[in-house]
Amino acid sequence: MNIEIKDAYALTGGEIGRHSIYITKDTISGIDRKPSGFKAEKTIDGTDRLVIPGLINAHTHSYMAPLRNIADDMPFMDWLLKGVEPVENKMTGEDAYWGAMLAMAEMISCGTTTFNDMQMHVHMTTKAAKESGMRAVICRGLVGDRYDREDRRIKEAFEEMPDADGTNGRLTFMLGPHAPYSAGFDYLRGVVDVAKENGLGIHIHLAESATEIENLKNDKGLTAIEYADKAGCFDVPCIAAHCVKVTASDMALLASKNVSVVTNPASNMKLGNGFAPVPEMMQAGINVCLGTDGAASNNSLNMFREMGLLTLIHKGTHDTPVCIGAAEALKMATENGARALGLENTGKIETGFKADLAIININTPSMVPANNMLSSLTYSANGSEVDTTIVDGEILMEGRELKTIDLERVIHEVSGMMERLKA
Amino acid sequence: MNIEIKDAYALTGGEIGRHSIYITKDTISGIDRKPSGFKAEKTIDGTDRLVIPGLINAHTHSYMAPLRNIADDMPFMDWLLKGVEPVENKMTGEDAYWGAMLAMAEMISCGTTTFNDMQMHVHMTTKAAKESGMRAVICRGLVGDRYDREDRRIKEAFEEMPDADGTNGRLTFMLGPHAPYSAGFDYLRGVVDVAKENGLGIHIHLAESATEIENLKNDKGLTAIEYADKAGCFDVPCIAAHCVKVTASDMALLASKNVSVVTNPASNMKLGNGFAPVPEMMQAGINVCLGTDGAASNNSLNMFREMGLLTLIHKGTHDTPVCIGAAEALKMATENGARALGLENTGKIETGFKADLAIININTPSMVPANNMLSSLTYSANGSEVDTTIVDGEILMEGRELKTIDLERVIHEVSGMMERLKA
Repeated sequence: MNIEIKDAYALTGGEIGRHSIYITKDTISGIDRKPSGFKAEKTIDGTDRLVIPGLINAHTHSYMAPLRNIADDMPFMDWLLKGVEPVENKMTGEDAYWGAMLAMAEMISCGTTTFNDMQMHVHMTTKAAKESGMRAVICRGLVGDRYDREDRRIKEAFEEMPDADGTNGRLTFMLGPHAPYSAGFDYLRGVVDVAKENGLGIHIHLAESATEIENLKNDKGLTAIEYADKAGCFDVPCIAAHCVKVTASDMALLASKNVSVVTNPASNMKLGNGFAPVPEMMQAGINVCLGTDGAASNNSLNMFREMGLLTLIHKGTHDTPVCIGAAEALKMATENGARALGLENTGKIETGFKADLAIININTPSMVPANNMLSSLTYSANGSEVDTTIVDGEILMEGRELKTIDLERVIHEVSGMMERLKA
Repeated sequence: MNIEIKDAYALTGGEIGRHSIYITKDTISGIDRKPSGFKAEKTIDGTDRLVIPGLINAHTHSYMAPLRNIADDMPFMDWLLKGVEPVENKMTGEDAYWGAMLAMAEMISCGTTTFNDMQMHVHMTTKAAKESGMRAVICRGLVGDRYDREDRRIKEAFEEMPDADGTNGRLTFMLGPHAPYSAGFDYLRGVVDVAKENGLGIHIHLAESATEIENLKNDKGLTAIEYADKAGCFDVPCIAAHCVKVTASDMALLASKNVSVVTNPASNMKLGNGFAPVPEMMQAGINVCLGTDGAASNNSLNMFREMGLLTLIHKGTHDTPVCIGAAEALKMATENGARALGLENTGKIETGFKADLAIININTPSMVPANNMLSSLTYSANGSEVDTTIVDGEILMEGRELKTIDLERVIHEVSGMMERLKA
């Protein structure tokens, strides 16, 4: 569908100004300059609207949305072994599908257009993503000790890839070796080899907790970053989630190998892992992007909340108001995410870029007055100001009404599922 | 109006269960047991609704809402002298009125029913509060060096008190000596004497920044808490905002004098002051409650956001998931706030308590599934899930529509005002 967003505030070239945006099929085909022959099939009135690039949640586990609030305010091992795992282990593929649908409902309703997912039930998140219309990078979680060509999970990862057919490139894939403590060194090397052979990137959890670091130090005499590097993880495009416990030399290594780091402020605090050295990683030249992690460890998939946390906590830890500003937060939640995920022409409002947009109602108490709209996204908005979410030129939400997801059905299915899983 | 909230989830006695709540005029007149002769003039269907005590924002400056996002990500002195003050100093009483109305629109829309306000333009916040219907404790900000019976600001504080007439007790007053650095010792003592004579409490900023502590140490050889104590502040009911930079002996002193502390996580981080030792203050036995501070230093007045920050940051600073849980956060944002503000029968859902309630739509992506509704308020909700806000038995918002505030008018007035003030 060809869409004209008429005379709205829009963030383009780092500045917010009034613009009209033309969308031809999946692409932004013009800003202020109407493409020749353009006929709008739909016009969106831009009065009191701010258009921003759709937000990119660079690390999550969407199928875990039903585990939201299942185990809070308890020690990590209780959270994992008594709270999350007993339920997670009982989830069927269909449960994972409904869970992913719930996650996508929440993400779309807060202006997120793309997510990077590590999942367990192949074909399920892809099915939900195809139906919801979101852009997604799908990574089958891989755990193992010794590598084997016939590894079931790796085979599944490849079996899933044809699911991208017919999505106009909205679905892409990476391999998801889980973490240094769950993917043995030999296994990790094998996964990296497979990634290399197939031109795939990898998405891995690294340096999340002090325990992980301590164990690796004891077992291998390496930091988590050194371990991953030694296994070859950084010789392919690599997204490292967390990186809370990293040294200066770890950061230099990440930067030199062009590893993208996804910081997950809520999750890191919630699980008692502390604060990632985000200003230092940025200083070291690392491409840092932003993620919510899964709903079991956040317990929200709202990137506005995450941008607020990101900017505030580092001012707090660094005793200065001048540390990760609103503009940087938004860049991390858009452009940097696109770069990390290898998504070309995504994450900015520019002619020729993908029409992945969030349109915000600025006539809400939290957004008034418009002293600095860019600041307000991070410091004042709660995410409910998003009126319309567009992915690949398709309207997924308008007037806060989800267009591709039957929310009532999703709530019904997830609620019923939880009664069964917790029984 | 007599209201029945029929068969809803409700938080009462620390537990969430299904209840029907009866409201007679301004008071909760029954839970599950209909008072004899009760006739509902309005029935609210409780299906998919969670009723919680209205949130109490224990420290804010509502007239400053128009300064939201006016000066972010800059050094403190630039924020104050180049950002906030040039505009604030030009604000007229009418500007302050519209600013306060904007603040109340935001607070009501996020389930806040009571706020404790330090303000500068007498009769203006009171006018807005009377019109909006919110419960408020109004504190005229007081600054000075030497005390004088004829002090203009103190006189104004008293002149304003009759504004409470006809509010059924919704408006009450305290005195608001600003801070140790703006209220000289002699002045502070004088204000405390006036408070004592008139049976009033005081509301003061204390120990907000390292600079404040350093200057007091140099000038008086005292911590901010010791200074306030020496001036007699703690011999009257006292609410101390911030208390970021407090020692163990400061905390013991605050506890022994029954001072209530309002923690303001966003503001403290945003201005680079760091993290208040909230777990330690609670451990010391201090009544800690929660506030947003003004919109210039937050930049949101959303108590859901503040509860999320509060719980997460202290898990982060204390390297443990078991530190200020969701139940404690909600208690701080309700009961503890009521206690601090001297509001009797407020802050809980109990028969005989004030009908100050927030009714939450739990059929939203962020609140599903209902694994732990108490947790979801702090970790998952963004505030937009509040459907209905009731103060003193009066419905101020229903179906997310503000009933007492003409939001369009407020936005128009505030936007116009800012064009003038920034010119």
